Amino acid sequence: MFVPIDKGSITSVKGIKAAGIHAGLKRKRKDLALIVSDTPASVSGTFTLNKVQAAPLQISKKIINRGNKIRAILINSGNANACTGETGYKDALEMQKLCAQKLNMDTNEVIISSTGVIGEYLPMDILKNGIETIVNKVSPDGGVDAAKAIMTTDTKAKHCAYKIRLKEGEVTLGGIAKGSGMIMPNMATMLAFIATDAEIGNKVLRKMLLDSVGNSFNKISVDGDTSTNDMVVMMANGVSGVKITEGSENEKIFSEALQQMTVQMAKEIVKDGEGATKLIELNVIGGKSEDDVNKIAETIANSPLFKTAIYGSDPNWGRIIAAVGRSGVNINPAKIEIMFDDVVILGRDYTHDFDEEEATAVLSKKEISITVNLNEGKASTTWWTCDFTEKYIEINASYRT
Amino acid sequence: MFVPIDKGSITSVKGIKAAGIHAGLKRKRKDLALIVSDTPASVSGTFTLNKVQAAPLQISKKIINRGNKIRAILINSGNANACTGETGYKDALEMQKLCAQKLNMDTNEVIISSTGVIGEYLPMDILKNGIETIVNKVSPDGGVDAAKAIMTTDTKAKHCAYKIRLKEGEVTLGGIAKGSGMIMPNMATMLAFIATDAEIGNKVLRKMLLDSVGNSFNKISVDGDTSTNDMVVMMANGVSGVKITEGSENEKIFSEALQQMTVQMAKEIVKDGEGATKLIELNVIGGKSEDDVNKIAETIANSPLFKTAIYGSDPNWGRIIAAVGRSGVNINPAKIEIMFDDVVILGRDYTHDFDEEEATAVLSKKEISITVNLNEGKASTTWWTCDFTEKYIEINASYRT
Repeated sequence: MFVPIDKGSITSVKGIKAAGIHAGLKRKRKDLALIVSDTPASVSGTFTLNKVQAAPLQISKKIINRGNKIRAILINSGNANACTGETGYKDALEMQKLCAQKLNMDTNEVIISSTGVIGEYLPMDILKNGIETIVNKVSPDGGVDAAKAIMTTDTKAKHCAYKIRLKEGEVTLGGIAKGSGMIMPNMATMLAFIATDAEIGNKVLRKMLLDSVGNSFNKISVDGDTSTNDMVVMMANGVSGVKITEGSENEKIFSEALQQMTVQMAKEIVKDGEGATKLIELNVIGGKSEDDVNKIAETIANSPLFKTAIYGSDPNWGRIIAAVGRSGVNINPAKIEIMFDDVVILGRDYTHDFDEEEATAVLSKKEISITVNLNEGKASTTWWTCDFTEKYIEINASYRT
Repeated sequence: MFVPIDKGSITSVKGIKAAGIHAGLKRKRKDLALIVSDTPASVSGTFTLNKVQAAPLQISKKIINRGNKIRAILINSGNANACTGETGYKDALEMQKLCAQKLNMDTNEVIISSTGVIGEYLPMDILKNGIETIVNKVSPDGGVDAAKAIMTTDTKAKHCAYKIRLKEGEVTLGGIAKGSGMIMPNMATMLAFIATDAEIGNKVLRKMLLDSVGNSFNKISVDGDTSTNDMVVMMANGVSGVKITEGSENEKIFSEALQQMTVQMAKEIVKDGEGATKLIELNVIGGKSEDDVNKIAETIANSPLFKTAIYGSDPNWGRIIAAVGRSGVNINPAKIEIMFDDVVILGRDYTHDFDEEEATAVLSKKEISITVNLNEGKASTTWWTCDFTEKYIEINASYRT
């Protein structure tokens, strides 16, 4: 019903143009991205839960919550415009206004977003020149450039797209994302911009986005830190002429595709986690409630001791069970079973007669599936995390200076 | 009123003997410690909040909660006897019984404790031989050896003692401690054994211990992980003949000394944190409530991004403010002020015109005081944490194997 598009991105979607350029906020790399929809698009979004919220995020959140259609998203990297007070807020409004003027749009049709260092003012001259340049560069092939321009410590651009076949015709879903460090549930330092040419009303769009974000971006962790700037924004411009209405078969299929796409982007973020060498899929099953399994998964996914053991390919299940124990969830440790891929590492009553070599072989892979069965009930969840390496320390001990 | 004793330890206390030997649980280093009181001692203790609790901890907790006097504490390192099921529980009982027999004590007069790898059975033959040896080795000079024998990844033995002058005479307070990784509030992988020759009833002993632990061991963090074996146990054997009663001037002075000693041991643990190169004293002041300031301090103390910035001597206050923001406490970020020692890094309304060189100079020191003023109220707290380095990763990627 839906298939990935090779090298797809947000501009795989009909009526979406984009560009990514080097404006001068970073020394050499691209640092300014613009996404434009030919027609006004329904929009929905989710935002950081951090109490400290960057100026551009505050402005974009207001627009999105108002429920009006939008036509463009402008994103800069290299500077988060967070903790910049009134000056920062004015700069963000100015950035939005300049972009809207150059695109002949209403200010409230432009969403803005920033990512990078906290606490420094935006260099407005550089940004102004950048905006003047980028508005003339948007094209139906610019999605990958836009993906590159929103990167900070990312080592790979993150973009993908799907073709979805519905009864009434074909629609496309595409997106770009960034995120590498400061990754933690509930919108960490990560940005994702998604578009579709399906026609979707605000209410359904919001429902589908929240569902898919809840099971993708909100279940990943690199280091447990949450940023001040994170957002996922999704536009639906209706250019395909195909409608997705509430409760329809279309909604079901579209939601599945959206879920698959957001999980794919979430996994790419974790895989590209600062210093990460391994992607860990963490399944916590057999819990009494959703809340229980998610609390446990979050605790394991954020445990430095667990993450360093995986880095060292050490089947140290003691650290997993210790993390389960401190999660605050009432469990019976003697009932817990742990598997690495299909190798049983720990059975009930703490039995562990696994083959060390076999276990180490699984842990030496680039992608590992770890399953923790609580044997208490039927709730389950899947999270994604990465290992913790010297490289993470190196990157973060020297990021700003 | 109280003074530290040079090279003091738990055996600086009258009527307390101890020893530390190599029994063979570890390859070369000391791994078995025994502390004996000449006379039965009142006892109190605090224990890990991890739901997974090691067998020796379960046994010792029961004895201590019963409120009877005890006469000895036997501790092994190299093996935590945690997640070892019924066998582990039987082994722990056996370890306790053997020790009591050799010392001619009642089984319930002996507290036991283990620290080390999780999930492996105790080598009972080695332990049995060790117990037979150690019971004949206890001496009034054995405190430092005992401190050495409870070390795991610690690089330094932790021990101290104080002489306290009271109206009725002099009493002594001494202790040993261990802990390096898996350090997190509420009893992480840390053990502390404290003794005094003052005469103290259970109720006052418990109150004083909880107060001092609450402001010392429960306010430190190395990596946010909590272990299955942690405990702080305090004995009062009354050998000095000086009584500490509830509400007395003696209680006040003694409490102060106990607080100072536990803070000293807590700081030594953080300073010796796995891979740590810097000790950070973190003051969160100006909060609306105790709960608020402690939540914020805990979040900052556990943030890998904060801890790596300190390692890199990078005055990246953005990471501190981002941690404050995600702590869940309602704050106004524009009111926050941050100081590194006496250098103002961030003023109200995000002003930050500090001298980079001066800030970097402070952060290059081995001991740094960081103060975060919320400017919201009068509550304050002090926590201790350390920086996060490549060495932490190295130690923990290869600990077990």
